[in-house]
Amino acid sequence: MTAPRCNRERLWNTLMTIGEIGHVEVEGSKAGGCHRLALTAKDKQARDLFISWAEALGCSLRVDAIGNLFLRREGADSSLAPVMTGSHLDTQPTGGKFDGVYGCIAGLEVLRCLHEQEISTRRPIEVAVWTNEEGARFKPAMLGSGVFAEVFSLQDALDTQDAEGVRVVDALSDLGYATQAADSRPDYYQYYELHIEQGPVLEAKDIDIGIVSGVLGMCWYQVDVVGRSCHAGPSPMHLRKDALVGASRMVLELTDMTAANGDNSRCTIGELAIPNASTNVSPGEVSFSLDLREATEERLERLEQRAVEIMHRIADEQDLTLSVRKTWTLPPCHFDKHCLDFISKAAELNDPDMKTYTLTSGAGHDAVYINRVIPAAMIFVPSEKGLSHNECEYTRPEHLETGCNLLLSTLLLAANAVDN
Amino acid sequence: MTAPRCNRERLWNTLMTIGEIGHVEVEGSKAGGCHRLALTAKDKQARDLFISWAEALGCSLRVDAIGNLFLRREGADSSLAPVMTGSHLDTQPTGGKFDGVYGCIAGLEVLRCLHEQEISTRRPIEVAVWTNEEGARFKPAMLGSGVFAEVFSLQDALDTQDAEGVRVVDALSDLGYATQAADSRPDYYQYYELHIEQGPVLEAKDIDIGIVSGVLGMCWYQVDVVGRSCHAGPSPMHLRKDALVGASRMVLELTDMTAANGDNSRCTIGELAIPNASTNVSPGEVSFSLDLREATEERLERLEQRAVEIMHRIADEQDLTLSVRKTWTLPPCHFDKHCLDFISKAAELNDPDMKTYTLTSGAGHDAVYINRVIPAAMIFVPSEKGLSHNECEYTRPEHLETGCNLLLSTLLLAANAVDN
Repeated sequence: MTAPRCNRERLWNTLMTIGEIGHVEVEGSKAGGCHRLALTAKDKQARDLFISWAEALGCSLRVDAIGNLFLRREGADSSLAPVMTGSHLDTQPTGGKFDGVYGCIAGLEVLRCLHEQEISTRRPIEVAVWTNEEGARFKPAMLGSGVFAEVFSLQDALDTQDAEGVRVVDALSDLGYATQAADSRPDYYQYYELHIEQGPVLEAKDIDIGIVSGVLGMCWYQVDVVGRSCHAGPSPMHLRKDALVGASRMVLELTDMTAANGDNSRCTIGELAIPNASTNVSPGEVSFSLDLREATEERLERLEQRAVEIMHRIADEQDLTLSVRKTWTLPPCHFDKHCLDFISKAAELNDPDMKTYTLTSGAGHDAVYINRVIPAAMIFVPSEKGLSHNECEYTRPEHLETGCNLLLSTLLLAANAVDN
Repeated sequence: MTAPRCNRERLWNTLMTIGEIGHVEVEGSKAGGCHRLALTAKDKQARDLFISWAEALGCSLRVDAIGNLFLRREGADSSLAPVMTGSHLDTQPTGGKFDGVYGCIAGLEVLRCLHEQEISTRRPIEVAVWTNEEGARFKPAMLGSGVFAEVFSLQDALDTQDAEGVRVVDALSDLGYATQAADSRPDYYQYYELHIEQGPVLEAKDIDIGIVSGVLGMCWYQVDVVGRSCHAGPSPMHLRKDALVGASRMVLELTDMTAANGDNSRCTIGELAIPNASTNVSPGEVSFSLDLREATEERLERLEQRAVEIMHRIADEQDLTLSVRKTWTLPPCHFDKHCLDFISKAAELNDPDMKTYTLTSGAGHDAVYINRVIPAAMIFVPSEKGLSHNECEYTRPEHLETGCNLLLSTLLLAANAVDN
């Protein structure tokens, strides 16, 4: 039996059509950028279009209290727990047309294939659109899937405000998603999420498909280095206590140590600020953020210990005062073994020549929270130059097609599974 | 003959009285901070008070077209070119009570001593208050002395705007200093400026008086380092082009090289910014300022060359794009030999045990510009911990007294000199 196939052209065109909502013309970008922050009018427009496409296939819509959408195609036995796939339609302020959106549109393409080929599945299949995955408008990120998985309380999430003070609950109500009483979460059999890689590994290895076994644990620190500010002229170099010189040494030692620590070790200093900076003042204070990631809890803990040791040693050596404060942590996620097996089996069935590679995701995704309450796993397709959260983000149509075909085969396997 | 002496208590009290205008209560500051930006209502209040004190001694006032004040005590022969001393009354946003103000108040104290001891001098003596020395409100710094010395055109200086778009000419007019037609600069015999050191050298050497032979030459650069931004999670360390890692290496190599280069070499990275910074994004771009200083033109040029070489080498090694742009330069200043001789001679006359030390100032002062048109030199007194541009700036009353006594003796020598 030949595995059913998705329609590459339809998949691409649908992705570009929804990408028109919030489209940004960007020089050097193959597909253009996209600016579509969560729960804005543009986000609503994209969601409505998505719903209309699914409803045209006979799907029904459910909206939960945090605005997550669930488009359902019935199964032969609608009393069985459905198989779910999905992702998000919101973007970063300077986002592209693939991050998140691809997972939703590929889910829709699967529904379209099943519909036009009149394929029935044992279990229902649902395609979810999670609210505010990016965290660009409302912090924290992955708000919708976090409420779904009870990581965040519904009330806290509804009260979350954007930079202008608009609450999630009011944004939902403005867009016509009237908040209902908290509904209990239905049972689901499994959850699969298809996403662009957001990193350069698959492209560098010339691989079509990444099977994502888990997500790196991560933690954030706020670091303050205090020395003594002094005038750039009158203070000889050896009488200074320059906080930027200390912070620079920390940046280098932290990144060198991490690079030597292993393939899954990550260390990023993304923000660094000098309060009251002036060209002719040697900085008395520097603050920076530190983002550390590792694949297992033990390795993450060791990485954190070594990082903190390095910073304290440098501060001591340079007579600087140091404050290191942990502000956020997310433990490593290990995806479900059965889901991963289904993906591997589906890849084999779909195309024995498909080049797959098992990897750990460095970035968080809705699937990380979903995996806490439903067995879950993810599939990655390559992202050109590893770009994401970037208007030049791009994935080739043939890679999008391969990923969608694998999602289709995986959902068919899962939706027809008879193990319970 | 005993050298005339200033009144330590009166000097201190006058300094504290004028410091009340803009006083800021600061924990840990012995004298409190001072917030008195150039040509604000507070600056006007301080200037008016200063004028009233000088006029009480019979001095006359002249205001030039950029708002510099000249308080004149006539000499025995008023046709002779006067000896001038002075400094500025404006402060940094978080300034102290000594930087600049001390030089003006010490000049006033000299006039008060001469007045009460009925000492006549051959030449007139003038005490100047220069407009906008700090450059905190209007850029560039040393605006008033720069116009006086024709470094800046009067018209450009009058058109200079603060951050709110207020022009110097309008600020002057609002404060009642109606702009007049540009008056030609009178002749002056010599100029002396007494100032706190702004650095830690005199205190570290336990010296009462610094005789300032010159000021380091300085130049400013704007440096942009461009790599590639990427998501903190999915990008392995070895596939990154992190602009902050490159910039950090530059900070360390530049400061290490400068520290090894010689006592008068200075290198300061005072501003460093990451555009669109985010905790979970490895920086694709970093901009920083670079302030280089040296005592002679040749040494400054060599320091600049080495700095630029270091930055290009690091950019090449790390595959980063580099832009280095020189934005400002001020050549080294060598103060007048005769003025320096007068200071040394006056120190000997005033107190043979006075501990003096000849040094090069790292910071610019009004005297640097004045020295281009009038023979000039400077005297420094120690500044506790080398603090300046700082609300905790402090100089002990006995050091202020010693400096003022030396200024008094120096001005007497110069004002009575018969060499022309």
